[in-house]
Amino acid sequence: MNPDLVLTVNGRRYRAPRQPLVVVCVDGCEPEYVNQAIAAGRTPFLASMRERGLCLTADCVVPSFTNPNNLSIVTGVPPAVHGICGNYFWDPDAGAEVMMDDPRYLRAGTLLAAFADAGAKVAVVTAKDKLRLLLGHRLSGICFSSETADRVTRAANGVEGILARVGLPLPSVYSAALSEFTFAAGVELLAHERPDILYLSTTDYVQHKAAPGITAANDFYGMMDGYLQRLDALGAAIVVTADHGMNAKTDAFGRPNVLYLQDALDAAFGRGTTRVILPITDPYVVHHGALGSFATVYTADPAASPAVASHVATLPGVLSVLTREEAARRFELPPDRIGDLVVVAERLSVIGTSASRHDLSGLTVPLRSHGGVSEQQVPLIANRVPPAPLPAGRRWRNFDAFDLALNHLQ
Amino acid sequence: MNPDLVLTVNGRRYRAPRQPLVVVCVDGCEPEYVNQAIAAGRTPFLASMRERGLCLTADCVVPSFTNPNNLSIVTGVPPAVHGICGNYFWDPDAGAEVMMDDPRYLRAGTLLAAFADAGAKVAVVTAKDKLRLLLGHRLSGICFSSETADRVTRAANGVEGILARVGLPLPSVYSAALSEFTFAAGVELLAHERPDILYLSTTDYVQHKAAPGITAANDFYGMMDGYLQRLDALGAAIVVTADHGMNAKTDAFGRPNVLYLQDALDAAFGRGTTRVILPITDPYVVHHGALGSFATVYTADPAASPAVASHVATLPGVLSVLTREEAARRFELPPDRIGDLVVVAERLSVIGTSASRHDLSGLTVPLRSHGGVSEQQVPLIANRVPPAPLPAGRRWRNFDAFDLALNHLQ
Repeated sequence: MNPDLVLTVNGRRYRAPRQPLVVVCVDGCEPEYVNQAIAAGRTPFLASMRERGLCLTADCVVPSFTNPNNLSIVTGVPPAVHGICGNYFWDPDAGAEVMMDDPRYLRAGTLLAAFADAGAKVAVVTAKDKLRLLLGHRLSGICFSSETADRVTRAANGVEGILARVGLPLPSVYSAALSEFTFAAGVELLAHERPDILYLSTTDYVQHKAAPGITAANDFYGMMDGYLQRLDALGAAIVVTADHGMNAKTDAFGRPNVLYLQDALDAAFGRGTTRVILPITDPYVVHHGALGSFATVYTADPAASPAVASHVATLPGVLSVLTREEAARRFELPPDRIGDLVVVAERLSVIGTSASRHDLSGLTVPLRSHGGVSEQQVPLIANRVPPAPLPAGRRWRNFDAFDLALNHLQ
Repeated sequence: MNPDLVLTVNGRRYRAPRQPLVVVCVDGCEPEYVNQAIAAGRTPFLASMRERGLCLTADCVVPSFTNPNNLSIVTGVPPAVHGICGNYFWDPDAGAEVMMDDPRYLRAGTLLAAFADAGAKVAVVTAKDKLRLLLGHRLSGICFSSETADRVTRAANGVEGILARVGLPLPSVYSAALSEFTFAAGVELLAHERPDILYLSTTDYVQHKAAPGITAANDFYGMMDGYLQRLDALGAAIVVTADHGMNAKTDAFGRPNVLYLQDALDAAFGRGTTRVILPITDPYVVHHGALGSFATVYTADPAASPAVASHVATLPGVLSVLTREEAARRFELPPDRIGDLVVVAERLSVIGTSASRHDLSGLTVPLRSHGGVSEQQVPLIANRVPPAPLPAGRRWRNFDAFDLALNHLQ
């Protein structure tokens, strides 16, 4: 592609990559995971970035969930613009609770598609298949998920034979291996297809189970470190960020601090008067029981919203209750895709709907989750030192990853 | 003492203990420390409390520092009543920045002194000497610090020969051993003096250095677990709580996220126009460099306060800026002992004065600290099951420890 190209995507300008650019979204990468892995001596490559690279602390999108943040990273804009504000929402047109994983809900084009249209070779590997259609929307390039790596075809995914090429077994969707496959596939693609832009998105299976510094977590970051080192050795500019952080959501005895908000509202206002939606909900709930720190509430009678809000504010575990307008403004969310109220839980608490609708039998270890402002801070790491000082006082966002890489580090 | 006695202290009523009561304030006990130590199998006694006992998540006092919270626990009231809102403050009468460790700053009597006056045998052991005079104010009983256990006398401390009786070496003030000595002394006193009320307060040396689940942290909680088991075996009712939680205050590379607020204000408004006070400051700053997530600001010209507040709100790492009145109301603080503004940092950030005034050479591991609302949630654990259900929806505070023990668990 033309190295002097400047593209404008969703109102932001980006220079073309002058060497292969790898942007990695490490699902659930609370900054402390990296810190503890470095302290344990498990990540020599990341440790070397203290001298050779850059580390900022950035704010992700709230709700601090996977899909809104991955879409923000690849569009460079908040959900108010791209439209994806959860995994799951109440679709008033359909009159139903539906997954928001279909590109028809996407309101902005991606940087990936725009660069591909401008002549760049673009490749995307996502751990879970739930993101593939959104990340690959209108993308002329390579796009597949590790979860379905055995079904990758040139026609559908722009590449073939990936399982054999990567040389790892097809991973379970609930495993650290799902992320490892994503990194290994990224190295394979960078070495042979040599994309101009490679986007890798992992899964937070490990982070939901292991706290920073715990063996399984250090093992994960040690694994990641090895692949980052190989991407670096292949000459790539690398930016590593995260979709969200991760916190314990339990009491000191490891029991989940859950506010069953639908139960509480049914008890206070009667059944059918409110509908609690948990945007964390997706088909993969075993490791978190669909429990996160963010919920929206629809009220059958909008005039009742203030009374509902006042009541919710008194419930244990609630950090803040915002009206649709307040939440849309503060968190840059599409007002038509959130409820009349947005409820954010405290750092150690999560919100459920009704106790009877959550299967916690898969929680074999104390719950760790995300969704709130307590999981908003994520790393923004690069294997480059900026040639000129970065703007002072700027609030960096995880969806500045491409801006940082293309406009400030080359 | 008369078992039917009911004492009113600082407006709250307390029943007399019917068996020895031990209240433990575990300095810096983020709930996750206990959770991870249980998960690692290091704390069988605490693990058994899941069936035999009680675990609540309580809110401590903000600023989430040691002295305000210890004083709240032993008085049963917030700093607005007892007056101790930091380790350190600007004394307008003295026209100087001074330590607030002298009982002349205490505006309320303690439960400990009140029970002793009513005939109870009361004993207090604090790890650091900085708390001894405040905790022992007007107390007829035993009160000493582990730090100065070699200088304990019957005249000054109500007991003698404690170093020999405990049988451990005099611990360093910067050590886990300082807390272990406190627990060991507690067991010795309970076994032989048989106090009706025993208050133990440890130091957060370990918690400032080791994250939950890390070996040094699990070792600490394993040590604590053994002493709690012995206190339990001696027939005590035990309530364990904390003065504050603890969080990483670094980026992903382990470098402290510090806002040097005095420098920032001097640059924006000129030297001498504002005075930043860090209430975390005390004589023991090696392990945290006097960096916490709470500061107060005095403005030379009160009319300039709104402009200063607006500017501070834009600075990186700032969670919230409150006026004196707002802070006094929200955090229940004495308005005459805080500045014109109160600044609370985000979870992963701390506030300093001027870079030149902080010696970070003692930070041999990535900074962990406290002071903000992010460290407000602490455990409230007991070795008893309440005979009747606890009040529903109550917001428990760490300074409800005596209320819980005396009024709800016996």
